[in-house]
Parts: sequence; C-alpha cells; structure tokens
Amino acid sequence: MSNPVAKRIQQISPFYVMELLQRAKELEAQGRDIIHMEIGEPDFATPQTILNAGITHLQSGQVKYTAAAGLSQLREKIAEFYQQRHGILVPPERIFITPGASGALLLALGVSLNPGDELLMADPCYPCNANFAALFEGIAKRIPVDADTQYQLTDELIQQHWTQNTRAVLLASPSNPTGTMIPAQALQQTINQVNAYGGNFYSDEIYHGLTYGADATTALKFSQNVFVINSFSKYFGMTGWRVGWLVVPEAYIEATEKLAQNVFIATSTNSQFAALAAFEPETLLELERRRQAFEKRRDFLYQRLVEMGFVCPVKPEGAFYIYANCSKFTDDSFKFAVDLLEAEGVAVTPGKDFGSHEARHHIRFAYTTSIENMEIALSRLERFIKQTPH
Amino acid sequence: MSNPVAKRIQQISPFYVMELLQRAKELEAQGRDIIHMEIGEPDFATPQTILNAGITHLQSGQVKYTAAAGLSQLREKIAEFYQQRHGILVPPERIFITPGASGALLLALGVSLNPGDELLMADPCYPCNANFAALFEGIAKRIPVDADTQYQLTDELIQQHWTQNTRAVLLASPSNPTGTMIPAQALQQTINQVNAYGGNFYSDEIYHGLTYGADATTALKFSQNVFVINSFSKYFGMTGWRVGWLVVPEAYIEATEKLAQNVFIATSTNSQFAALAAFEPETLLELERRRQAFEKRRDFLYQRLVEMGFVCPVKPEGAFYIYANCSKFTDDSFKFAVDLLEAEGVAVTPGKDFGSHEARHHIRFAYTTSIENMEIALSRLERFIKQTPH
Repeated sequence: MSNPVAKRIQQISPFYVMELLQRAKELEAQGRDIIHMEIGEPDFATPQTILNAGITHLQSGQVKYTAAAGLSQLREKIAEFYQQRHGILVPPERIFITPGASGALLLALGVSLNPGDELLMADPCYPCNANFAALFEGIAKRIPVDADTQYQLTDELIQQHWTQNTRAVLLASPSNPTGTMIPAQALQQTINQVNAYGGNFYSDEIYHGLTYGADATTALKFSQNVFVINSFSKYFGMTGWRVGWLVVPEAYIEATEKLAQNVFIATSTNSQFAALAAFEPETLLELERRRQAFEKRRDFLYQRLVEMGFVCPVKPEGAFYIYANCSKFTDDSFKFAVDLLEAEGVAVTPGKDFGSHEARHHIRFAYTTSIENMEIALSRLERFIKQTPH
Repeated sequence: MSNPVAKRIQQISPFYVMELLQRAKELEAQGRDIIHMEIGEPDFATPQTILNAGITHLQSGQVKYTAAAGLSQLREKIAEFYQQRHGILVPPERIFITPGASGALLLALGVSLNPGDELLMADPCYPCNANFAALFEGIAKRIPVDADTQYQLTDELIQQHWTQNTRAVLLASPSNPTGTMIPAQALQQTINQVNAYGGNFYSDEIYHGLTYGADATTALKFSQNVFVINSFSKYFGMTGWRVGWLVVPEAYIEATEKLAQNVFIATSTNSQFAALAAFEPETLLELERRRQAFEKRRDFLYQRLVEMGFVCPVKPEGAFYIYANCSKFTDDSFKFAVDLLEAEGVAVTPGKDFGSHEARHHIRFAYTTSIENMEIALSRLERFIKQTPH
C-alpha cells in the first residue's frame, strides 16, 4: 500500500495548459499542423553570442560546481547592468544566480515566509507564485484585479486586504498573463506602503526589457529592502538554460547563501558562463531587434483580437501576452481552448492557469510566434468562432 | 528596518567547509599552493563523449524548455540502464529528471513529508538531507552510527527510534561522508521494515557506480514503493551540469509532476542532452577506468592515514571519501582543519559538516585529487601533526 502525498500538494495547482500541450503533441504526431500560442517561450533561438560563449566553455571541459551564489563575474556583470540601464548601485553580494526565476522565487520565499504568513498577489497572476507560498505552508491571498487598475495591485487594494497575518506583497510588472505594467510612481508608493506595514516586497521583473513604451522601472530604484526576481529566460532568450537571479536585502544575504547551498548546490555552470555574454553590446543589439519584432506582433495581435470581438480594455505594454476576455464567445474558456485546439489546431492558454477571478472568461494568447503564423492562427480562430454556436 | 529571516532558516545549517574554501581561495590568491581534499568533486573533467553531446546540442541553437519531468529520451535511457545494470524494469514514467540530486531530494521530500513528520537518518550523513526536512517543516531525527554498523542505520536502530511521528527513513549507500555500504540483504530487510511501519523509504544512490568491491544494489530491486535519488554528478563526472534523477512510487507521479513544474519548470536542457551520452559504451569504458583510479587512490590514502595514526575502522567500499577519526591529534576537528590549511595549505572537511555525533573527532578526506597530489598533501599533514602540540 502506498502512502498519501503531502498535504501541501493539494494546495499546489498543476499547469492546466499541459493537458492541452499533451493533446497538441498527439495531434502533431498524427500529422496535424498546430500553431502554438500557449507557451511563454519565444520562437527565437538563443542569441548566437550566448550560444558561442556556452560552446567555448564546454570546449574547456571544466564544467565544475560554481559557488552557490553563482559565478562572481556574472554577479558583477548584473550589478554593472543595473548601473548602466537603471543608474543604480547594487552590490554583487546581494545578487544570487539561480536556476531560473523559479529558483529565485524559491529562495526569496524560503528565506522570508513562515507557515501561516499571508502573501498578497494579483488574480490573475503567474500561477507558481501562489504555489511557492503553499510549498512553504504560507497562504497566497489572491486579490481580484481588472482593467480599472491595469490588472495590478494598488495601494487601496493592499490596504483593504492587509490583515494581521499579512507579511508580504508580490507584484509583477510587466505582468504575466496581462502584459500590463505599474507606473514608476505607483511602484514607489506601494513599496513605501509595504515597508511601512513592516512587510516584505517581492518584485517579479522577469519581463523587464520586453516593454513597448516606457521602460520598466526596477523596484531597486526605490528601496534596498526589496526582493527582486529576474531571469535570463525571456528578454535574453535563454529559456532552456535555466538561469536567473535574485537580489535580496542585505539582511537576507546569509540566509539566502545557506538556502542556495542546500537546495541547489549551484546553478548550471555552463549556463552561467553562457550568460556572461548576455550583456555584450552585440547581444543587446540583437535583443533590441527582437523587442521591436515583439512590439509589431503585439500591435498586430491586439488589433485582430479586438476586431474579432475579444475584449482587451488595456493594451499590454510589455511581456509577450494578451489576456483577452472571451465572454462574447464562451463562459468556459478551458473548453473553448480545448475545442479550438481540436477543431483548428490553435493552442492557447485558458484563464484558469492564472487564478480564479473571471478566469473562465479569459484566454491568454502568447505572441511568441511569427506574424505569418499568427495570421493563419487568427483566420482559424475566426472560422472557429463563426462555426461554433454561442 | 529589515524583517527577520524565516524561522526554518535557523534549522538549516550552512556548509561549514565553505569558510575553509573561502580562506583557501584567499591563500591561493596570495600565491600559496593549496591541495584540495575537501570538496566532493572529482578532478576528472566531464567525459569527452558527454562534452561533445553538449556542444552538438548547443550548436543546434535550440535550447528550449523540456517537459518538467525531463527529456523523454533521457528518462528512457535511465530505464534501460536499470534493466542492463540491475536487471530490473522501471517504467520511464516514474523517472523524473532533476537539477542534480538536490532537485531530486527537494521533490521527494516535498511530495511526501508533512510539517512535524520525523525523518530518520544516520549521523554522520550528507548535511542537506536534514536541511531539506527542515525546509518543509519536517524533523530530521539523526541517529548516531559508528563502525559497529558500518556507519549505516540498521533494523534495530530504526525500530529503537521509530515513534508515532516517524514517517520515513533515508539511507545512503555508498554513504557520504563514510564511503560505507549497506549489504543488499540488509537493505531489503530495512525496506520491508519501513514499508511494514507504513513509512516512506528514500534511497540516496548518488555514489552508485563508484564502488570498489561488490556493486551497490538499488532499492528498486526490492520494492517499487521507494524513492530513489540519483545523479549524473559523481559517477558520470557531471558535477557542474546540475542534472540528476528521482524515481518515485507510482502513487506519487502526479504530485511530483506538479511540484516539478512549479519549482523548476524543467532541468537545464543542454545538460539533459549531454547526459544522453552518459550511457554510451565509450563513456562507460572511460568511467570504469576512472573507477579503477579511484580505487587505487582509496587504497593509497587509507593506508597512509592509518599509518599516520588516524583511525578508520571500516575501509570504505565506495564514493571517494575517507571519514577518519582524528581524536589522537585533536578534540576539535574544525580547528584542526583550519590550522592545517593555514600551516600547510591542505584543505579537508571537518566532521561537523555531517552531523554532531563524534563530529569533533572526525575529518573527511576526499580522494578527488591525484595520488601525486595526495603524496604531497600527506607529507604536509604528517609534518603538521608532528609540529603541532596535542
């Protein structure tokens, strides 16, 4: 007889989109043409400069453990990047290299969240945020947000939901799934508010760089008493390399070091050496070209979805997602996504992967494929909508 | 004002050897010659076949996310390896690719250990075992072991320490730091015992392959209701790649999948492609040459340490460590290690990194450097012992 799974697992949601992805693969194996607009992974390959740095390192044969906090050269390069791009000084000692933003979230919550602590976050938001809180026996309090607040938490919402058990707030700007941002001044006010409450502030900045109007402002500009989660996955095009970083307040350095040693030993060495090339001028030029391509894709997709009857009251300013209200067509966006895949071979992510607030009325479209592919996908979507009784 | 670190962090010990490593690096920067016998990382480079597989994959440019459970080809290759080397059938669905054995331990305990649950393990043992239990608010109950039981838990010890809060037992064979093994029959009895108690059994098999007498027997030979933690780091020479695996009982597949999605997204893609070459005949031949080299090193080091007055009642049969009793020279093995490094430039790991039972009387020597280097290190150690008042 087998034993029961740990109770925390019941509090952790799976990625529902994986069911769709599984089915998409089956259909592809049957020869069907599937257009993928579901996964948060750009179609662009890793920039050649980064690939070359990885290859050169492997050719050395020396793929040994690094320090738990990461390669010191890489920590220094990230510190330089904060200085160059944001004009702020972040000591490398506060920067930890992690296995992706996932590793950063694991460390950030592991060193700061106690069992029973409440962590405020938006609904919808990136699903793992709440699941990491559950992993540490904390309580994710998901606050419904909508277009009125750009799908972001506000001071009023935080004040309204703060209880004696609340210990922290997590914001993401640009946000996944909505692509919306929080203005710099509002970010500053919220950080001040959370600090005044004596809470911790986690800033998810993994889509920084992928913005199509104003640049995103890092929380580090306003306080040294914040946790910042970032990654080489999205803007730098390094998804499969699993390398990201975490900036911690000084008081958490020792705890973070200790936890990193124990839970990771270290981040993949080759990925760290490759990431050293991420800040080279040639890489940054290529990333700027890609950013411009993403902006064109956003404009194209946004216009077409709105024309078709999807409701997108806030035009996304960053990331590579549009979180579209599909209530004109369905009250069950999961079924809509399943049917769309079966009928037309277009894969999208249902709202329930991002929370429960109005999830059944939302679909996330990722513009991680070319405009040409999206043209085809949208024609199929249009046909699907016309042929399906609503 | 900054907030306090989470309470669990107080239950998590740092790697004390890191202080020594830090000092060793300072001394090296000053031009001192340091011989490293402290770190559990072989001096051998990753086998060329594996490096080549990694390079070929990077040249493809396609470093995308894999499924959370890992590349299906790699899971299948591991299943084949179990069949070829151990003659057992393990369905690939039960094999999860993880960021090193650390990731495997994280998943194994995350899906099965509840807050307050007691997990029995040997003292001394690998320090992260207890720290992972603390991460999930579990309680590591460390049972003192010594040469009488080959530094392994026995049925009697487990029976003696099992309480109503005990939920699981963790064994490592070969063990870090002692290099000792548990005979196949004893392993089978212990698994049966733990299953009869309704507990979970975790088998740390990361030093499998590195044995110098009888092969190690996998727990999977005796039960499908066990968690097996393994890694490409040690035997396969892939430390810095951060890739390992976890085998779970069937009832835990879904929970493990869900947890892996959330805490890792996936393991480094390039490391997984490289690991596909780990089971090639050419790689295994090279690994066998290395195993023989390790055996010679063990024999050399063991003999010299015993001649010098260190007490090693059980000759290690696996891994690449000797856990030597140094009570003839000191009652404070940490100070001994610090002084040895300062005086003679030889780095070793103090016992307190592995627990508290007789830790102050033990030093772990890693034979992860050549016999030539160990010759020099041991001459220095001999001089140090003679010159230091005891």
